[in-house]
Amino acid sequence: MIIGRILGTVVSTQKDERLVGKKLLIVKPINLDGSDQSGYVVAVDTVGAGFHEKVMVVGGSSARMADGNKDCPIDSAIIGVIDTIDLT
Amino acid sequence: MIIGRILGTVVSTQKDERLVGKKLLIVKPINLDGSDQSGYVVAVDTVGAGFHEKVMVVGGSSARMADGNKDCPIDSAIIGVIDTIDLT
Amino acid sequence: MIIGRILGTVVSTQKDERLVGKKLLIVKPINLDGSDQSGYVVAVDTVGAGFHEKVMVVGGSSARMADGNKDCPIDSAIIGVIDTIDLT
Amino acid sequence: MIIGRILGTVVSTQKDERLVGKKLLIVKPINLDGSDQSGYVVAVDTVGAGFHEKVMVVGGSSARMADGNKDCPIDSAIIGVIDTIDLT
Amino acid sequence: MIIGRILGTVVSTQKDERLVGKKLLIVKPINLDGSDQSGYVVAVDTVGAGFHEKVMVVGGSSARMADGNKDCPIDSAIIGVIDTIDLT
Repeated sequence: MIIGRILGTVVSTQKDERLVGKKLLIVKPINLDGSDQSGYVVAVDTVGAGFHEKVMVVGGSSARMADGNKDCPIDSAIIGVIDTIDLT
Repeated sequence: MIIGRILGTVVSTQKDERLVGKKLLIVKPINLDGSDQSGYVVAVDTVGAGFHEKVMVVGGSSARMADGNKDCPIDSAIIGVIDTIDLT
Repeated sequence: MIIGRILGTVVSTQKDERLVGKKLLIVKPINLDGSDQSGYVVAVDTVGAGFHEKVMVVGGSSARMADGNKDCPIDSAIIGVIDTIDLT
Repeated sequence: MIIGRILGTVVSTQKDERLVGKKLLIVKPINLDGSDQSGYVVAVDTVGAGFHEKVMVVGGSSARMADGNKDCPIDSAIIGVIDTIDLT
Repeated sequence: MIIGRILGTVVSTQKDERLVGKKLLIVKPINLDGSDQSGYVVAVDTVGAGFHEKVMVVGGSSARMADGNKDCPIDSAIIGVIDTIDLT
């Protein structure tokens, strides 16, 4: 999984019917020091994440294992809000 | 998922029979400011996207979950036309 | 999917038995202007592609959905010969 | 699979229920000479790995094949602690 | 699939039980001219490949389709020893 912060939302009316009601968030991957990485990913929120929160994102077929995503045409899902990152 | 804009079409006569009737579009990935990224992907359109529209593209096995793509040999599908991207 | 051109063949005698009889081709990914990208991929031909032809290549688990590849240990397959690329 | 060393842990309270009780570790990919690569991955520990140990990490759908991960929304799992790397 | 040469072995005692008895090899991806690429991958050998031999490596879920790997937590497998690469 990767760690990112929520940057915004994607609004789409004309879309696959299995995406109806899904919250599509733009996630910016971040480094362990909190700085931004390049790029972004559009992920389905499954845990009620808030804006600017640090989240954990799963990619690939496992995104369909997240709550409510079974058989959905998605390849990225937010599966956790991160409290702390402990580097030892 | 990634966001891209439709750049053109691919025409192929000699192809896997499960691709017959599929619209194969060339999608250019874009940044959040609308500028182009490098590279491109060929994706099956499943939502009736128009040229130059901004679209959302799913990759990997989940592309086969998009409408009409079950068991098709494809790894990329357009699953939504994007109305707006809201960066907060 | 990506677009590439066929560069050559791979000959392997000692291999997984499900690869017996498969044509293993070396594909060079190309840009939309026809120039070469870096790298290459070894893909199973499923459409009878000829040397130097432009082809469409599917990757990941979907390569096993191409004709004749069910349950094969392959992650890349040629699924179409490209007639034209129309950039609009 | 890749090789990495364990750098720390991720603490998340608000998460997919199938992640409850899973140990989420931050793994830094390393080169064969032991030096760090760029980036990191968050992986579910399935073998009781200790901090700073060298581990083997599996990615993608196969991470769900690791012990205890069936149907979990994860794309990365630690599946072995590495004793030695023998370069011949 | 990619082409690589076998560089060494990984020894792991504390590991997923489905890895017991598997030969874990370090593979260096190579270019078509035989020169090394950067990086490496740890792959399960399924064809009895010898050191320094050129091999073909499959990645992702398809690695589980290779002989003996069913349901194993692996994402990379050696599926062929390469005799020749013919560039035309």
